[in-house]
Amino acid sequence: MMTGSFPMNGGYGTYSYAKNSQYQREASNVVKEMINKAITEKFDVKNKIATSRTIRIADLGCSVGPNTFIAMQNVIAVVEKKYYSQVLPSEKLEFQVFFNDHISNDFNTLFTSLPVDRQYFVTGVPGSFYELLFPSSSLHFVHSAYALHWLSKVPEKLLDKNSPAWNKGKIHYIGASDEVRNAYAAQFEKDMENFLNARSKEIIAGGMMVLIMVGLLDDFQPSETSTGVTFNFLESSLMDMVNGGLINGAQVDLFNFPIYVACPKEMTMLI
Amino acid sequence: MMTGSFPMNGGYGTYSYAKNSQYQREASNVVKEMINKAITEKFDVKNKIATSRTIRIADLGCSVGPNTFIAMQNVIAVVEKKYYSQVLPSEKLEFQVFFNDHISNDFNTLFTSLPVDRQYFVTGVPGSFYELLFPSSSLHFVHSAYALHWLSKVPEKLLDKNSPAWNKGKIHYIGASDEVRNAYAAQFEKDMENFLNARSKEIIAGGMMVLIMVGLLDDFQPSETSTGVTFNFLESSLMDMVNGGLINGAQVDLFNFPIYVACPKEMTMLI
Repeated sequence: MMTGSFPMNGGYGTYSYAKNSQYQREASNVVKEMINKAITEKFDVKNKIATSRTIRIADLGCSVGPNTFIAMQNVIAVVEKKYYSQVLPSEKLEFQVFFNDHISNDFNTLFTSLPVDRQYFVTGVPGSFYELLFPSSSLHFVHSAYALHWLSKVPEKLLDKNSPAWNKGKIHYIGASDEVRNAYAAQFEKDMENFLNARSKEIIAGGMMVLIMVGLLDDFQPSETSTGVTFNFLESSLMDMVNGGLINGAQVDLFNFPIYVACPKEMTMLI
Repeated sequence: MMTGSFPMNGGYGTYSYAKNSQYQREASNVVKEMINKAITEKFDVKNKIATSRTIRIADLGCSVGPNTFIAMQNVIAVVEKKYYSQVLPSEKLEFQVFFNDHISNDFNTLFTSLPVDRQYFVTGVPGSFYELLFPSSSLHFVHSAYALHWLSKVPEKLLDKNSPAWNKGKIHYIGASDEVRNAYAAQFEKDMENFLNARSKEIIAGGMMVLIMVGLLDDFQPSETSTGVTFNFLESSLMDMVNGGLINGAQVDLFNFPIYVACPKEMTMLI
């Protein structure tokens, strides 16, 4: 997923998401069996298609592919398998997949790289998933992978010189004051609430949602994660550039990653 | 609308469709009243929303805007007016607009230029409207303006040296042999049949379709139209370049505009 402020590279070039998302793809494979089990055990295909033979699936924060294509194909295969084990094969199921990401996402690349042998109808949906994106009760299945750690924006307090959460010389909450961490947590909570409110309107009664998120064990420090190490390294590099007169300190003060990695305790409190 | 072989310029630059579609916009205004009348008299809003409060509208061959936004806004306004004159205002209607054009269309520009005050959910649908684009019975209203004169492809016979329809030294059927004209007409007929077959599956029973097409009066010669004059001028310019050794004659032989302007008689036979 991209944010308006920090767009990743579109297309399929060296620095593109498409060429740098092997980690996300492998993690998706790990949860694949969990998703298959959830659909097989809990997704009531017969009831869902009572009024229509169309199953509508959304992938929120899809980027430009190819991971989203693999994930959607898997969901469709499992739903189809379950459906045809219960219903006469003559009644063909149809799938409409809604690929969502920010308006600044490279949808041109997404569309031109769609699998040619796909067995579903394609739509692209531009917009923030922290707002309403679909009509009421219009989705049967919602999927979102590695997207919800992106906040809707940098917490405002971080950019306010008069706030105790003013994040001078730092680019994230890692290694910063408690006020900064709390500002991030508050933004995450607000964003998640908006996300869940929107989905509760869009998903039909009895529909299913699968959220794959990066998380942090409750007794684990953010600075100990690979992301934490990377952020600290980047931060000290930027400060070296400030000290060497290559960039302005004020630029670093105003730059903060809009990313928050929640721990299970925080998630449980939310849901 | 764009074709894979002859893409117009995307974006909002000097040669873009967005900056060169004033003619189409004004013609849309002319038919606006006809569309409003048709919706007001024939579109059964109450019945359409019996199972859902969502009206799904598609614009086929939408390009990058802004004409498509104006057209969709108008359709929505008229449907809403009719609906609220019949139904309690407390039951709010929702609109989902599907913007369709070729996969090579500049959807990034389309999405970033969406009206900020829009009152509908947006999706982009990449693909040829000569094929199925939507699930069965999923659309209430289909709109297509100035798009159906684009054929799905150049008629194959024109590129075959051994065919009587081999279009040597020409770029269109204007001023060409009857065989060439017939090959274009046959392709148009085939394309229209595919278009109407696809829509008949996608539109719900009692739904509505509005097609705005360029046409030619039955007793009018194509060469007398402004397009005919332009094509003839372009053709003779290209042949001058061939004669001057600037381009190869074989390149002109293989270049043919995939455009066909039907006369009412042909349309009546089709529908």
